[in-house]
Amino acid sequence: MATYSCKSREELRVEAQQMLARYEKLKEEKLDLNMARGKPSQQQLDLVSGLLTVLHDPDDCIIDGDDCRNYGDLAGLRCARDYWADVLGCKWNETFVGGNSSLSMMYDLISHAYIHGLKDSPKPWGQEERVKFLCPSPGYDRHFRITESFGFELITVPMTPDGPDMDIVEELVTDPMVKGIWCVPKYSNPQGYCYSDVTIQRFANLKPAAPDFLIMWDNAYCVHEFAGEFEPFPDIISLCAEAGRPNMVFEFASTSKITMPGAGISVMASSEENIRYIMNLIAVQTISYDKINQLRHVKFLKDKAHTLELMKKHAEILGPKFKLVLKMLRAELTNRGIAHWHLPKGGYFVCVAAMPGTAKRTLELCQEAGVHMTEAGSTYPYGVDPHDSMIRIAPSYPPIEELEKAMEVFCTSLKIAALEKFLGSTLI
Amino acid sequence: MATYSCKSREELRVEAQQMLARYEKLKEEKLDLNMARGKPSQQQLDLVSGLLTVLHDPDDCIIDGDDCRNYGDLAGLRCARDYWADVLGCKWNETFVGGNSSLSMMYDLISHAYIHGLKDSPKPWGQEERVKFLCPSPGYDRHFRITESFGFELITVPMTPDGPDMDIVEELVTDPMVKGIWCVPKYSNPQGYCYSDVTIQRFANLKPAAPDFLIMWDNAYCVHEFAGEFEPFPDIISLCAEAGRPNMVFEFASTSKITMPGAGISVMASSEENIRYIMNLIAVQTISYDKINQLRHVKFLKDKAHTLELMKKHAEILGPKFKLVLKMLRAELTNRGIAHWHLPKGGYFVCVAAMPGTAKRTLELCQEAGVHMTEAGSTYPYGVDPHDSMIRIAPSYPPIEELEKAMEVFCTSLKIAALEKFLGSTLI
Repeated sequence: MATYSCKSREELRVEAQQMLARYEKLKEEKLDLNMARGKPSQQQLDLVSGLLTVLHDPDDCIIDGDDCRNYGDLAGLRCARDYWADVLGCKWNETFVGGNSSLSMMYDLISHAYIHGLKDSPKPWGQEERVKFLCPSPGYDRHFRITESFGFELITVPMTPDGPDMDIVEELVTDPMVKGIWCVPKYSNPQGYCYSDVTIQRFANLKPAAPDFLIMWDNAYCVHEFAGEFEPFPDIISLCAEAGRPNMVFEFASTSKITMPGAGISVMASSEENIRYIMNLIAVQTISYDKINQLRHVKFLKDKAHTLELMKKHAEILGPKFKLVLKMLRAELTNRGIAHWHLPKGGYFVCVAAMPGTAKRTLELCQEAGVHMTEAGSTYPYGVDPHDSMIRIAPSYPPIEELEKAMEVFCTSLKIAALEKFLGSTLI
Repeated sequence: MATYSCKSREELRVEAQQMLARYEKLKEEKLDLNMARGKPSQQQLDLVSGLLTVLHDPDDCIIDGDDCRNYGDLAGLRCARDYWADVLGCKWNETFVGGNSSLSMMYDLISHAYIHGLKDSPKPWGQEERVKFLCPSPGYDRHFRITESFGFELITVPMTPDGPDMDIVEELVTDPMVKGIWCVPKYSNPQGYCYSDVTIQRFANLKPAAPDFLIMWDNAYCVHEFAGEFEPFPDIISLCAEAGRPNMVFEFASTSKITMPGAGISVMASSEENIRYIMNLIAVQTISYDKINQLRHVKFLKDKAHTLELMKKHAEILGPKFKLVLKMLRAELTNRGIAHWHLPKGGYFVCVAAMPGTAKRTLELCQEAGVHMTEAGSTYPYGVDPHDSMIRIAPSYPPIEELEKAMEVFCTSLKIAALEKFLGSTLI
């Protein structure tokens, strides 16, 4: 199969005819398929039904002499802190176990930085003239939107297969107005890249001008392999401590894609000093988080080893879906010079870099044919992809038959968008 | 029994001798009793064990075709919104059902006002030169601390048995810098007063100078009678709408003292327009709240009528405790002119107004004898009771035998503190 750019206009027209016919046929099926969000499928949720009944009697709610049914333990149950310390490879007193959403923990942390300032802040960020925040892109739209909602200036940092471009990061942090950076170190959203050891070391050894520079280390996919064995990851908390800036990083994780999305537990990890500092601020917000649900999770997930066994079962469901996506991308789009992608081993996404200027149009065509995907541009700050190229595929939710159909629509749409570009006119 | 002020110095000395002897004897018991916080007792928690297993199978998690185990429904499950609308007497689309803590919902709302502004705000409160907030006192320390943490100026408004002194409130809200007020309309914390219908009408008809004036209507004890029948309360949402300022009020409630504290569900109610506005802000914070726990609660509590039946069972446990407190207060402190109190029919507290200048000393003596209570002053802004008089008793948590002992310590301590005041010297 030759690249479109090598084809004659006539050849492109023939290809276009074929694709349009296929598209119209797909449209007739009146599909309603969703690849928009990283939602686990029903099959995955059925893996964790035991969670519903793991606490049966009042006696089950007593742990270490503490009745979890009552108020108290702001930083979370000790057993829940132990659990997360095991998973993340840090110490229990470097963790704070919260409620059902790590995203809201991240929001709260930024909010505290804005209103009250962080541990090492000269003043609250809300009182700074300007605050800039680094956004490795493509990245997670919800991260970017949080910092945007506080009126920070979002600065795009290019991603590489080894993580954010650290030459650029190191340069940018010499600006004292640059207050932080968003990171998804393992199976980055959406490309599925894992930060290399060198990248992680360079993060730990950053020497930002801002004394309260904040690395938002969202380890959302820390145990989320869908292919191959568990990939160990270094403990960013101790690395930053060793490098002499223990308060520079906050790490986040949750069980949203381990047990039940939106009904799980979340964690934030940082230096003990940071945790103490932030606890004083959180004590104003709430009395304690849902410890019953924390206990439920600890009893059900037990420890890291047992969690990894569960993740293998998730992988059995997720793996074939990702395989299908990659198989179809390969079959439909390889060697045409109109898209490329990375083959991830974990996480929840495949990111397709379409030919510049065709992402929006591709998704428009998908939408018209009943396939819903994350909006084009959403993986960039302010929702604007400068090259109109990145498309995030979230294959986890639909059953595999639907996924195949959805991918057919996607590939057809992408090809039509590319052909339109080459032919210089809208085809539909 | 004559008032202390009518006694001779000699008589006071005799009384002091007796009280000191009693105090020393109590101290020898090396007590460790807690009347600090409005925590339900273990017996109460045992009433709701069914909550743990009400969702048994995956099928139980499907409601109206919606799988609650997955992301979605930011404003809460429709059935949870219906439940709260039933309890509060408002419409379902005037509710937003959240996570385990109504306090954190209140914090978030103030935080959004500060960072982004409310629906009718000319600008975010954080950009105002000064923000003043009204604090009917004695009141709830955690309310006051939230607004204090944002740097607002807290203004004390006197409480009356009918609610906050509305003449003063109406006068104060003519200042455009006054942005809001904290209210606990039913069984106010700590006095247990219920706002009268007239007070509530005057609230709904407030004409504050600030266009974004905010009534924080914390209906924490809306169904929490421990004596007598359920007392109906008017729907503040529709009252404000009728008075032409539908966006002026946000009402809050939770199941913290209905099911399990810290593992329940919370609600916020306001005009439909306000809910829509605030949802847009919350959408940046989180994807959704714990719907599994929402469903668990709806299936367990069913509706208002069924909830009131459960509250009767709580009352059977709480009622005797409050009776005991009041009996002991009457027996030990009546007619001595050193303390007075109100007899509430619901809520979680009894508030004792000790002779001015004796509250701190009373609690110091309690503490030394092993009885822990909320710090003196905590029911006032900035933790300072100008008269050093108000003491909050929280009798719900200790078993009744312990409570009797704790009250003995309390009454003895209060009398010693008063005697010291009359005699002009410290006795211990």
